[in-house]
Amino acid sequence: MKAVVYDGPRNIKVKNVADAKIEKPTDVLVRITTTNICGSDLHMYDGRTDMEPGRVLGHENMGEVAEVGKAVDRIKIGEMVCLPFNIACGFCRNCEAGFTAFCLTTNPPMAGAAYGFADMGPYSGGQAELLRVPYGDFNCLRLPPEAKDPEKQLDYVMLSDIFPTGWHATELAGVAPGDSVVIYGSGPVGLMAALSATLKSARQVMVVDHHQDRLKLAEKIGAIPIDESKGSPVDQVMKLTGGKGADKGCECVGYQCHDPQEQEHSNLTMNHLVRSVKFTGGIGVVGVFVPKDPNAPEELEKKGEIAFDMGWFWFKGQRVGTGQANVKRYNRQLRDLITAGKAKPSWIVSHKLPLTEAPEGYKHFDARDKGWTKVVLRPAA
Amino acid sequence: MKAVVYDGPRNIKVKNVADAKIEKPTDVLVRITTTNICGSDLHMYDGRTDMEPGRVLGHENMGEVAEVGKAVDRIKIGEMVCLPFNIACGFCRNCEAGFTAFCLTTNPPMAGAAYGFADMGPYSGGQAELLRVPYGDFNCLRLPPEAKDPEKQLDYVMLSDIFPTGWHATELAGVAPGDSVVIYGSGPVGLMAALSATLKSARQVMVVDHHQDRLKLAEKIGAIPIDESKGSPVDQVMKLTGGKGADKGCECVGYQCHDPQEQEHSNLTMNHLVRSVKFTGGIGVVGVFVPKDPNAPEELEKKGEIAFDMGWFWFKGQRVGTGQANVKRYNRQLRDLITAGKAKPSWIVSHKLPLTEAPEGYKHFDARDKGWTKVVLRPAA
Amino acid sequence: MKAVVYDGPRNIKVKNVADAKIEKPTDVLVRITTTNICGSDLHMYDGRTDMEPGRVLGHENMGEVAEVGKAVDRIKIGEMVCLPFNIACGFCRNCEAGFTAFCLTTNPPMAGAAYGFADMGPYSGGQAELLRVPYGDFNCLRLPPEAKDPEKQLDYVMLSDIFPTGWHATELAGVAPGDSVVIYGSGPVGLMAALSATLKSARQVMVVDHHQDRLKLAEKIGAIPIDESKGSPVDQVMKLTGGKGADKGCECVGYQCHDPQEQEHSNLTMNHLVRSVKFTGGIGVVGVFVPKDPNAPEELEKKGEIAFDMGWFWFKGQRVGTGQANVKRYNRQLRDLITAGKAKPSWIVSHKLPLTEAPEGYKHFDARDKGWTKVVLRPAA
Amino acid sequence: MKAVVYDGPRNIKVKNVADAKIEKPTDVLVRITTTNICGSDLHMYDGRTDMEPGRVLGHENMGEVAEVGKAVDRIKIGEMVCLPFNIACGFCRNCEAGFTAFCLTTNPPMAGAAYGFADMGPYSGGQAELLRVPYGDFNCLRLPPEAKDPEKQLDYVMLSDIFPTGWHATELAGVAPGDSVVIYGSGPVGLMAALSATLKSARQVMVVDHHQDRLKLAEKIGAIPIDESKGSPVDQVMKLTGGKGADKGCECVGYQCHDPQEQEHSNLTMNHLVRSVKFTGGIGVVGVFVPKDPNAPEELEKKGEIAFDMGWFWFKGQRVGTGQANVKRYNRQLRDLITAGKAKPSWIVSHKLPLTEAPEGYKHFDARDKGWTKVVLRPAA
Repeated sequence: MKAVVYDGPRNIKVKNVADAKIEKPTDVLVRITTTNICGSDLHMYDGRTDMEPGRVLGHENMGEVAEVGKAVDRIKIGEMVCLPFNIACGFCRNCEAGFTAFCLTTNPPMAGAAYGFADMGPYSGGQAELLRVPYGDFNCLRLPPEAKDPEKQLDYVMLSDIFPTGWHATELAGVAPGDSVVIYGSGPVGLMAALSATLKSARQVMVVDHHQDRLKLAEKIGAIPIDESKGSPVDQVMKLTGGKGADKGCECVGYQCHDPQEQEHSNLTMNHLVRSVKFTGGIGVVGVFVPKDPNAPEELEKKGEIAFDMGWFWFKGQRVGTGQANVKRYNRQLRDLITAGKAKPSWIVSHKLPLTEAPEGYKHFDARDKGWTKVVLRPAA
Repeated sequence: MKAVVYDGPRNIKVKNVADAKIEKPTDVLVRITTTNICGSDLHMYDGRTDMEPGRVLGHENMGEVAEVGKAVDRIKIGEMVCLPFNIACGFCRNCEAGFTAFCLTTNPPMAGAAYGFADMGPYSGGQAELLRVPYGDFNCLRLPPEAKDPEKQLDYVMLSDIFPTGWHATELAGVAPGDSVVIYGSGPVGLMAALSATLKSARQVMVVDHHQDRLKLAEKIGAIPIDESKGSPVDQVMKLTGGKGADKGCECVGYQCHDPQEQEHSNLTMNHLVRSVKFTGGIGVVGVFVPKDPNAPEELEKKGEIAFDMGWFWFKGQRVGTGQANVKRYNRQLRDLITAGKAKPSWIVSHKLPLTEAPEGYKHFDARDKGWTKVVLRPAA
Repeated sequence: MKAVVYDGPRNIKVKNVADAKIEKPTDVLVRITTTNICGSDLHMYDGRTDMEPGRVLGHENMGEVAEVGKAVDRIKIGEMVCLPFNIACGFCRNCEAGFTAFCLTTNPPMAGAAYGFADMGPYSGGQAELLRVPYGDFNCLRLPPEAKDPEKQLDYVMLSDIFPTGWHATELAGVAPGDSVVIYGSGPVGLMAALSATLKSARQVMVVDHHQDRLKLAEKIGAIPIDESKGSPVDQVMKLTGGKGADKGCECVGYQCHDPQEQEHSNLTMNHLVRSVKFTGGIGVVGVFVPKDPNAPEELEKKGEIAFDMGWFWFKGQRVGTGQANVKRYNRQLRDLITAGKAKPSWIVSHKLPLTEAPEGYKHFDARDKGWTKVVLRPAA
Repeated sequence: MKAVVYDGPRNIKVKNVADAKIEKPTDVLVRITTTNICGSDLHMYDGRTDMEPGRVLGHENMGEVAEVGKAVDRIKIGEMVCLPFNIACGFCRNCEAGFTAFCLTTNPPMAGAAYGFADMGPYSGGQAELLRVPYGDFNCLRLPPEAKDPEKQLDYVMLSDIFPTGWHATELAGVAPGDSVVIYGSGPVGLMAALSATLKSARQVMVVDHHQDRLKLAEKIGAIPIDESKGSPVDQVMKLTGGKGADKGCECVGYQCHDPQEQEHSNLTMNHLVRSVKFTGGIGVVGVFVPKDPNAPEELEKKGEIAFDMGWFWFKGQRVGTGQANVKRYNRQLRDLITAGKAKPSWIVSHKLPLTEAPEGYKHFDARDKGWTKVVLRPAA
């Protein structure tokens, strides 16, 4: 089958590899119809992880069930399914408690596995024609028949990662109806956090970034764009909230955070959030931070540390929640909102490419080239 | 009246000052029977805050109602009451939401006021014969008649701060029945966190410190003492939890954190907690951190920052909650447990001194002199 | 001042009564600009309560602050305020826990007080020119200056009762994003529950009634009208939910529940809800039920009992929450949604009458006359 | 193998039946070491359900893993395991949300399955030498090696049902530290609710019954026995709570509720609870109620209805949660408390019988014969 293979920093190729297949009786095999390039793929693309060359990328996947293992009871051949990027067993202590992003079975001794991802287990990615899905009954999200329509897939595929991840940011932050919310980062995840806060009836959703094209997308769903290249984002948030700060904040950038001059400072968004959010407020962090980063520009960052404004954080009595989204906590409900026509996450899609054009997609998306906000790949196209 | 007055770093005097009195119709005047020296008083005592000389200290107070203002409906003269260290109005946005430690009325434009405390408003402390209690109907916790007994007061006075603060640590951490819990710091607050975790039916409560006398107190209520002078506390926690880490962790030390060699490192406990607590775990921070600390030994610390292990924190998907305890959230229930004989926080009291001996008490408690675990002052004695 | 006085069953008069005035230092006096007739006023109007003749009605009130007591710190003369129908002290055990509908101070030995309401304390109502507001700092909700505009008042006045009450129904039921929700009753409260469920991103909101004009209002905000005169509402809900039942249900009718043939059966909505809601689902009950009802048509009802389908309720593992709304839990956030233009509860208002036409308003609203969906009174008009 | 077979009302026989065996690749086969007679078995024993003659009873089971299916990854032969009475798939909508008592896969079109239980699917019970456990990786709770000890089994076997069920009662009621709690019923489940409330640091736990031997067991763990044969239990609760009522209440009896004169009134405990619990309080119902009961003594009861005091329930703003316990929500934590020596549920065991004496055990337990509080069967003895 054709697949997108990582061959080292900024080196992506579409190659022929061995077909994915059923390996265990609990597996499901999915013929991928739609698969996205994710912002977190770029950490690997940039060589800022220890991803092994030769592996197939892709953790935002959906498709049609091609085959099921002998122990699979629920999922049937021919059904359309969306796959959470988390690979989870469903029966370990963490899965049972809903922490499917921290499954203890699928990537020991770590917690949490994913398709085609550094440090997240040996699983092959879905930027390919076929994908093996472990524990298929647990991991497959059934989609309605309309998901056969390629246009509808642009919405449903977002259930694999970024829509639940944006939602998770607002859950970790504790966003409630009537809240004022500030979101740092208007990449795909930040935009999904903005959509999520809006669906939760926040009264005010502010999105901070310095990329104009992305801020425009935020504005399209009623969020207030804050252009950090025009002045301190903290000051702008304070002005918009009558000096009080936002009730809740979301970090949707991660350790490779750049200021408007494109300098990387890994503590930038976290400290901005502490300042932008009110006393007693909550902060959700879904942007990726890593335990070590030998190629980082700053000393602390190499050790995975940041110079964090603990004094204000504590004095303000704030809370922060972090980590990868437990996709299964949210994907059924969000699917139902898509089906009911109440959420349309596809508004951020800028490019729909055949799988063979993946290298082009990676290049432009990585460069944050204007207008390249979200790239969807079509293995069957 | 006699009162304990701060006269500059490590300079405490008992002086005659003007009597506290009713100033507003919502005030209550309390004749103090029992008032404690708190670990957070030591930040002021050490000159590590901008406390103004001449002010009366003391925020852990209880006593008998001596007089009530004209608008006071609930509290009656002669009742025994315990006063939360927080001074709160009861009607601002934060108080209504239960965040009485962050009252927007009593110390504008900051959030939160306290008796005799740096940066927490102009209120006089209760290490004195009389105390003015603003918004008396809201702030006074009624005690049962047995609270007239000086022995019982040793339990009830702990409701003013450290018992609710220790409880708050476990609430912020999310301690639940069956949990394994690690607590950094076996000072009075850490010990109260250990008591709280025990009352919540944690299966395992570990307390880390290097002061033997305090670790012994932890052991007395069934906690497991971890002596950090005998090896990495993280390793010891890992061993006790089968390599998984504790479910939840509590920070009960704050920015003036010392290693077993008595060197101060403001990030020590936070980074130990990140390592000691499991994937998906929660951390509660009630040890004080300050926005700036010009006299600090480390560069980052001067700015109120710490070198924080954000990489592991995020990778493990942990949560952290911080800040002063909203005492009123817990003090009724904890009072009822004391009255029912189900909690006895006085076990940590080492010294009961007349008010006039306060300077002695401060000196020994500040030096962590052996056996000086908690000092109670008796203005009437 | 002029006021709407209850003179016995179906006998309402506008009379001159003594002016409301400041009686205690914590009081605030409000000049009423807008005050509504509530569905629960009709229980009194119909003589189905033990309301004393001679009392002034009206618990859905807003206006301008005319005077403040000496102990009032927050509220200022000239401010526009909306008053929760609950009269609460702010410092009793229940108020502190957020249960302001069950204040232990304002109506002892019962829990909970209201303006102009049977069994809810001696307080005079606000269908009058002036209203005395006890514990003014706690009970007044400040409105933005635009609330001086009579048109805007049609939205803001709903914060006194029915918007928070409808919201409360969805809170008690546990409505979450993505849920399917069924609401029994499309009177003003039922419609507000529908609006609330919509704001919470329910995927499907069904409203059951047999009054066409009210069902049309539900349809206007995107809810699905279920006409119970056309067949079993349970069957209709089952059909719309693929045989599973709704995730959550709301009771917005109460004990005077009528079937499409206008026969009263006090257990009708509760048992319909048990059947309409899925296994594990939640039900919120804000429709009024009373401890005794000597004039009721059914034997059980006279004792305040209903023949309740406990078997299915338990077998399905459902939850039910009940009671009057704690308005202060919700009114700030809902006010902010109105100000931000994200909620417009005035869409249900059918009639704006001067105070003198209150008797006409009561008569038509009580008869459920077509088109009389919500009556607003203007004392100043 | 030998097994306890239901042969019609009050007719239980120990017979030889076909060995239980692995039927699906996800099955686990367990050799039962310990299995209890449950109070809910008595509804079947009494002929008050539609249990089919010939079926094997027993849903409180533990034992040693004898064999595992080909798709089982976690559970190994030789491990000691305890089986939740719920049979759940782990991947349906309800299981994912933690509602394993309402699994949508194992007993369609109903929700929820159990071993050897009327209306809960075709599964054979564990009062036998061997038990087939579907979805073994999900349903088996691993026990520590000490569970090989028959004495320790008396604690661990309680994790299959009554300890989690008693805990569930307190969860549904919302029992929190410092609460006053009243429990109706001092059968095994009521006693476990009392233990659970105690572990949650309730300040006062009251248990209502008229069986002296059972009340004595309640007293043994510090609960206050309330003998309803000596006067109204509601009055006694009111007296013990200063006229306020308990904060929370638990129903641990069910529809076959008897007054002290041994007359059955299916609404007795529910209405007592409404009266005994305070305004705003919560009630948890784990006693069984059934949708229909043709052999019931009362008319309403035949239809599964009760004459419920809805008026007071609503007026007091109470909440009620119901249904079978989702055992997996609690059994890991409770197991850990047993292992840590912090909970010892075996204190209620009165009889340990070989399987062959099961008929004797059923007879005495059903008769509530003095001293027969909990019967444990040993198939291997």
